[in-house]
Amino acid sequence: MGLFSKDIKTLDDLFVHQLQDVYYAERQIAQALPDMIEKATDAGLKRGLETHLGETRNHVKRLEQVFKMHGAEAKGVECPAIDGIIEEADDIVGEVDDKNVLDAALIAAAQAVEHYEMTRYGTLIAWAKQLGRADCARILQQNLEEEKAADSKLTALAEKNVNVKAA
Amino acid sequence: MGLFSKDIKTLDDLFVHQLQDVYYAERQIAQALPDMIEKATDAGLKRGLETHLGETRNHVKRLEQVFKMHGAEAKGVECPAIDGIIEEADDIVGEVDDKNVLDAALIAAAQAVEHYEMTRYGTLIAWAKQLGRADCARILQQNLEEEKAADSKLTALAEKNVNVKAA
Repeated sequence: MGLFSKDIKTLDDLFVHQLQDVYYAERQIAQALPDMIEKATDAGLKRGLETHLGETRNHVKRLEQVFKMHGAEAKGVECPAIDGIIEEADDIVGEVDDKNVLDAALIAAAQAVEHYEMTRYGTLIAWAKQLGRADCARILQQNLEEEKAADSKLTALAEKNVNVKAA
Repeated sequence: MGLFSKDIKTLDDLFVHQLQDVYYAERQIAQALPDMIEKATDAGLKRGLETHLGETRNHVKRLEQVFKMHGAEAKGVECPAIDGIIEEADDIVGEVDDKNVLDAALIAAAQAVEHYEMTRYGTLIAWAKQLGRADCARILQQNLEEEKAADSKLTALAEKNVNVKAA
């Protein structure tokens, strides 16, 4: 989190802090995805992750837009949650000794990332609306919709193809 | 994760490993919730978290039932993801200097926990079905439904009450 005293006094402070958290998270995800893409065997999974890497880079830009609209500096704060989720993804990927099972594990790891972002964007949108920043909420909603769509695509890919090959 | 070699060879191995992950996570959550309940000010939030603590303890028992049905030992593996999510919750709670804003932060933290569990149960259910364990999937579905309901209740509480007071 990067703060060492009780620096969050208002909902606005909390909103900016959470923006910084998800900004850090999106950039960590953009760094982690190329390794996952390289390890994926299923062509559909590889393509899906590649598409999501492009979306993730765009999410970073949208967040920078929200920072600017809200008059706050675009910077990240350390986020132990996403670090833990990515660490766990790395761990599991290192432990799987079968390409098809690895694809199933990669989907699970990617969906844990999507769900983390979904919860953070859901919170940010609610706070933005409460703070009278419907304009920021609309931008954040675009990121949320893409996270949800990515999660749904991964579910479909797992159930129709990857899990079948892994079993 | 607790494994140091490529010990996951089949989807069944991966399923058991993920069960161990969520078993560890549910027990960590049961340990973390009493502190969140103590710190919550809003009466509805306090009650909601108390109800969810009871549900969480029941989730642990259901997971033990699934381990037994599947012929695996009920044990946890370290899960950096839930550790990171809980660490981040502790950090943010320590940084907020206003009771109403703290309630909003507690809801966000609790929803991050719910979403982590939702993604893991979703994965486990898909794998259980693929492995022909519809019986295990049914038990896991009960946990998933309670996580989703807890998340929805927190959203309603935030939007109707807690965020309004915090703003």
